[in-house]
Amino acid sequence: MDYGERAIEEHRRLRGKIALTLKDALDSREKLSIYYTPGVGAVSSYVAEHPSEAREYTWLNNCVAVVSDGSAVLGLGDIGPLGALPVMEGKCMLFKHFAGIDAVPIVLNVHTADEIVAAVKAIAPSFGGINLEDIAAPVCFEVEERLKKELSIPVMHDDQHGTAVVTLAGLINAMKVTGRELADAKIVVAGAGAAGTAIVKLLHRYARPRMFVVDSKGVVSPNRKDLNDEKKKLLEYTNLSGIDGSLEEILQGADVFIGVSKPGLLTGRMIKTMAKNPIIFAMANPVPEILPDEARAAGAAVVATGRSDFPNQVNNALAFPGIFRGALDNQVRAITDDHKIAAAEAIASLVQKPNSDCVVPSVLDSQLAKAVAQRIVA
Amino acid sequence: MDYGERAIEEHRRLRGKIALTLKDALDSREKLSIYYTPGVGAVSSYVAEHPSEAREYTWLNNCVAVVSDGSAVLGLGDIGPLGALPVMEGKCMLFKHFAGIDAVPIVLNVHTADEIVAAVKAIAPSFGGINLEDIAAPVCFEVEERLKKELSIPVMHDDQHGTAVVTLAGLINAMKVTGRELADAKIVVAGAGAAGTAIVKLLHRYARPRMFVVDSKGVVSPNRKDLNDEKKKLLEYTNLSGIDGSLEEILQGADVFIGVSKPGLLTGRMIKTMAKNPIIFAMANPVPEILPDEARAAGAAVVATGRSDFPNQVNNALAFPGIFRGALDNQVRAITDDHKIAAAEAIASLVQKPNSDCVVPSVLDSQLAKAVAQRIVA
Repeated sequence: MDYGERAIEEHRRLRGKIALTLKDALDSREKLSIYYTPGVGAVSSYVAEHPSEAREYTWLNNCVAVVSDGSAVLGLGDIGPLGALPVMEGKCMLFKHFAGIDAVPIVLNVHTADEIVAAVKAIAPSFGGINLEDIAAPVCFEVEERLKKELSIPVMHDDQHGTAVVTLAGLINAMKVTGRELADAKIVVAGAGAAGTAIVKLLHRYARPRMFVVDSKGVVSPNRKDLNDEKKKLLEYTNLSGIDGSLEEILQGADVFIGVSKPGLLTGRMIKTMAKNPIIFAMANPVPEILPDEARAAGAAVVATGRSDFPNQVNNALAFPGIFRGALDNQVRAITDDHKIAAAEAIASLVQKPNSDCVVPSVLDSQLAKAVAQRIVA
Repeated sequence: MDYGERAIEEHRRLRGKIALTLKDALDSREKLSIYYTPGVGAVSSYVAEHPSEAREYTWLNNCVAVVSDGSAVLGLGDIGPLGALPVMEGKCMLFKHFAGIDAVPIVLNVHTADEIVAAVKAIAPSFGGINLEDIAAPVCFEVEERLKKELSIPVMHDDQHGTAVVTLAGLINAMKVTGRELADAKIVVAGAGAAGTAIVKLLHRYARPRMFVVDSKGVVSPNRKDLNDEKKKLLEYTNLSGIDGSLEEILQGADVFIGVSKPGLLTGRMIKTMAKNPIIFAMANPVPEILPDEARAAGAAVVATGRSDFPNQVNNALAFPGIFRGALDNQVRAITDDHKIAAAEAIASLVQKPNSDCVVPSVLDSQLAKAVAQRIVA
């Protein structure tokens, strides 16, 4: 039985993977009077008068919403809010298990940037942070940018920044393993959506390597007339020489391939044209751009995927639990590039001796969330 | 130390009364693969293709949102969303403790009917039901009416209908105790907001007693020019003779006083002008319209309040947990007047031998939610 069949069976058995629990039993009239009426009235009055202390009297200090409109779910695409709900519940499990955070899945019946922003702003007082998830580009960019401006709690689109952080973490160690400097590397990123864009921006901020982004039409270049605003912005960081070409062409001599695109995009033949001992991060999920065995056979020195059944699982679960744990604990209102870089360095540093089969720690590493959280400071 | 001080102390200690818990431990790569990627993808695909089965694979079958904009919180009034949050968390505790329901507090930063409706509709796919709470009249009426029409999950404004159900339940037994028939009673309702309106409508539907509603300007009558639409509608059920007057005047000869208004509104002197052995439901919270001792001294045969420290606690907690339990279990899409009457009868029937100190069961009665839930059927 494959994971899909087992997952359907287990989900049908559980009928919901998460539940509410009470932090104290409600087993007497006295407790009813303290936690509900009449006692709670005094708490509400106090909080209304001292809104900055609300987190001291409610679950705001530990509560994050996992918000999706279901427009870009895993590799499944636009499957809508109900389809997205099992994934969001799963993400809430990860928040709780890895970081002790009370996360609530919120799936939205609206899909324009204006509507998503309005809905999230309306419910924002209910939460201590907002994790945006599986919202399609380019809507996701506008939604995140506006919410970050207009809300005073941390907002992070994990498909962008979580992915960028774990990619940087893996690359830091992959560079050590292959004896490279990131600043000198030629990097090709396949996929110009949410993840690809964020990866490029963070790598530029970290080391300014020579980068090229490839979408379904080829290399993103100043000569192309079909670029949306977000892709045009990528030209500030990538393809400074203004080259045109296909993925195959631009890969020649590259040190690193980063795939956030689609299954099977990369071939062993292409890898053979890259620099010696190339680094392959094939992170399309659940089926990567190339399978690790094939990439290694073609000469790849380090191969990473998003999957748990291969070595080097470069998965967002390495980053987001600790990032939000730190943001909540340290009352960080905005997660900055410096936070993301610090998180990536913390993740990378948990690997004592990086080698080709170990450039990132295990997502099950119990030190992970704490190590990351310590770096997310105001 | 009073309940307010203790409540503040306990809330500061707990920092949130509710938390998330996982229905299975996430302690292996295999479980990550089943509950999250890659396995969950198959579940999401299935649910997207079979949306009516979403509740079988997610917590939708057991999950209710407790939604408030903080505009009419307890006796505190318009204290805003953060001020409302401790109350909503408390309500979520009651949902879980009394009915096993996973309830999520959602406090809103928006206050017009259009905005509240838009926000709740946007997040509705996340929940199996919507409990509206502490939203001021008249906005609450439009919000509930529109959401009931536009959503396919149960929506109930508890300040209206929960209050109406428990009031009817208490009155059914108070009638027995005092040897009256509800259909023959003269009833004065003080308060023409959410609760008063719903009580009048439900009592009319149940027994068509002779009713009068009093607001801060006196009896609601066809001669008044200051009535909003909702108050005008009350004239279909109340004051059919078109009388004008004050609370004091209209109370003369009345069998029942129902207070959903403000502390201290009713005096012993007024009670003495009512019919013999009158029934007093003084439900302003936390300070009732008259204290039970004073009402009894003035001749009241049955006195009920919303408080847990007096006999006859006519509290919404008697009704809403069971109503939503039944609606979720029996896939009831709309909670009707018939459901509310059935719930009231179920609550009343749990009192074996009604007497002046016991017209409703204890909110801690473990049979309550189940007995009510059984009556909420499609």
